[in-house]
Amino acid sequence: MSPAALPIRAPSPGEDGRALLHARYREETAWPLELNAVLEAQLGHRSVRAYLPDPLPEGALETAIAAAQSAPSSSNLQIWSVLAVADPARKSRLAALAGNQKHILEAPLFLIWLIDFDRLTQLTPPQGPACEALDYTETFLLGAVDTSLAAQNAVTALESLGLGTVYTGGIRNKPAEVAAELGLPPRVFPLYGLAVGWPDPDRPAAVKPRLPQASVLFHEQYAWTQAQREAAEAYNPRIRAFQREQAMPEKDWTLQARERTRGPSSMAGRHVLKDVLNGLGFQLK
Amino acid sequence: MSPAALPIRAPSPGEDGRALLHARYREETAWPLELNAVLEAQLGHRSVRAYLPDPLPEGALETAIAAAQSAPSSSNLQIWSVLAVADPARKSRLAALAGNQKHILEAPLFLIWLIDFDRLTQLTPPQGPACEALDYTETFLLGAVDTSLAAQNAVTALESLGLGTVYTGGIRNKPAEVAAELGLPPRVFPLYGLAVGWPDPDRPAAVKPRLPQASVLFHEQYAWTQAQREAAEAYNPRIRAFQREQAMPEKDWTLQARERTRGPSSMAGRHVLKDVLNGLGFQLK
Repeated sequence: MSPAALPIRAPSPGEDGRALLHARYREETAWPLELNAVLEAQLGHRSVRAYLPDPLPEGALETAIAAAQSAPSSSNLQIWSVLAVADPARKSRLAALAGNQKHILEAPLFLIWLIDFDRLTQLTPPQGPACEALDYTETFLLGAVDTSLAAQNAVTALESLGLGTVYTGGIRNKPAEVAAELGLPPRVFPLYGLAVGWPDPDRPAAVKPRLPQASVLFHEQYAWTQAQREAAEAYNPRIRAFQREQAMPEKDWTLQARERTRGPSSMAGRHVLKDVLNGLGFQLK
Repeated sequence: MSPAALPIRAPSPGEDGRALLHARYREETAWPLELNAVLEAQLGHRSVRAYLPDPLPEGALETAIAAAQSAPSSSNLQIWSVLAVADPARKSRLAALAGNQKHILEAPLFLIWLIDFDRLTQLTPPQGPACEALDYTETFLLGAVDTSLAAQNAVTALESLGLGTVYTGGIRNKPAEVAAELGLPPRVFPLYGLAVGWPDPDRPAAVKPRLPQASVLFHEQYAWTQAQREAAEAYNPRIRAFQREQAMPEKDWTLQARERTRGPSSMAGRHVLKDVLNGLGFQLK
C-alpha cells in the first residue's frame, strides 16, 4: 500500500504494459509491472518529426511551463527560462541555423530552452554579495541539469495532451547566431530547441528500441561484466530490425555511435562550444 | 480534438487544477487548463526528505528505469547509466561524502545517475573510428542533458507509483571519492544522486512556490521588461509566506539566491569541478 499514492486511474491489464516494454526493449521483461496513465504515457514516448499545421489548444503552453516549473530546482535557483517562437519567419531562420530541420518549420511552436544567469543578476540586490559562482563550470552544469529536468517535464505534459515533441540539439551548431536572433543578453545560453505540435497521423512515428536494461542499470557498484557486454551486443540486431521496419539504411548501433562521436568532423561545428560559451559570457572556471 | 490523444482518464473538475496551480504560483492563473492524471502528478510534485524504512515494491525500480530509457536521447547515443545503492553501509558512506544528508540514510534506495562514456568505448568495434568527440565540452554537456531527461522521467514514474524522491547534487562536493566508492571507470561521472522511498506521512513535504510564469516564459524574443521585473519581485513575499508556514527562517529569494551563488566559499568544494573532471578523464576541450 502506498501512503501517498497519486489519484491515478486503475492499472490497465498487464498485457498492455508488456507490449509497451516489448516495443522499447524488443526482449521479454519479467519484473512485476504496475501500469498507470503516467507510465503508459512515458513508456510509449516517441519523438515526432511530422506535424499538422494546427496551433496548440489555448492554455497548453502555459500548462506545460507550469509542469516544467514544478520540476526540482537545485537550491531553488531556477536558473533557466524558455522562449516560445511561433513566428514562421523566425522559425525558418532558426531552422536554417539548426541544420535545416524541416520539422521546425512544420511544428506550430518551437520552444528554446535557456540556461539563464541573467535574471538572477538582474533581480538580486546590488548591495548584496557578488554572484561569482556563476563563473564556474559547476554552475553552468547545474544550469544544464535544471533546464533539462524542466524541459522533460514539459515534454511529458505536452504528450499527455496528445501533442508531439522533438528536441533539437542543432541550435548548438551556431549558438552565438541563435542568441543574436533571439536577443539574448550575456550569460543566457540556448541549450536546445523543442518542436511542439499535433503529430501528423499519416506519418506516424515509431517507438525506438533502447539498450537492454541490464547494460544500463548497475547495482551497488559499477562493473562491466560479460553478461552486460552480451546484453549490449544483443542490441545491434534489434536496432537493425527497427531500421528495416522504418525503411532506413541498416547499421549497427555500435558503429553508428562510433561514427557520431568520431571527432570534430562529426560534431557539426560544436567542437568550438567552449570558445562560444566564453564569448557569451560563461567563464567556465 | 487530438489526433493522438493518450488514453488518460477524464479531466478532473477545473477547481482541482486551479488549486494545484495556486500552490505552485501563489497567484491567480487564467489560462484554460485541461487537467489529466499526468499533469496532476507533475503539478503536485514536492521533494521528499522524510522516508519510511519500507523497501520499494518489486518491479518499481525496473519500471522507473524503463521510463528513464524511454526519454529522448541525442543521436540515440544513450551515454548515461544508473547505479542503484541499497546497502546501508554504502549509503552511509555516500551520505557522508554528500554533506551528511540524513534522508539518504532514511530512504531505502539511493540512485546515482552517471554520465557514462565508458560503455560506448567498451562496445564499439576496435577497427572503427576513434571516439574523439568524447573529449569535448559539447559531448559532456550532451551527457548531462541526456542523463537529466532520463532521471526526470524516472522521478515522474516513481511519483506516479506513490513513491517520493529528492535529488542530491551534494555528491558533486567530492565526485572523485564517490567515483572510487562506486568503482567507476574513467570517463564515468556521478552527476547527482536521487533518494527514493515511501514518503513518511507524519512528516509531509509541501509544494514549493516558484517564480511567476511571466518572469520565466518569453515570446519570440528575450526581453527583460518592467512587467517581468515586477512579476519576479512579487515572488519574495510568496517564498517568505512558504518559509513561515514551514517554520523555516524567513529570507527573500533574491538574497538567498545571491548568497548561494556568492562564489567558491558558497560552493561546498564544487569550484574545483573542472579539475576533478579532468582527473576523471574528461578533457572538456
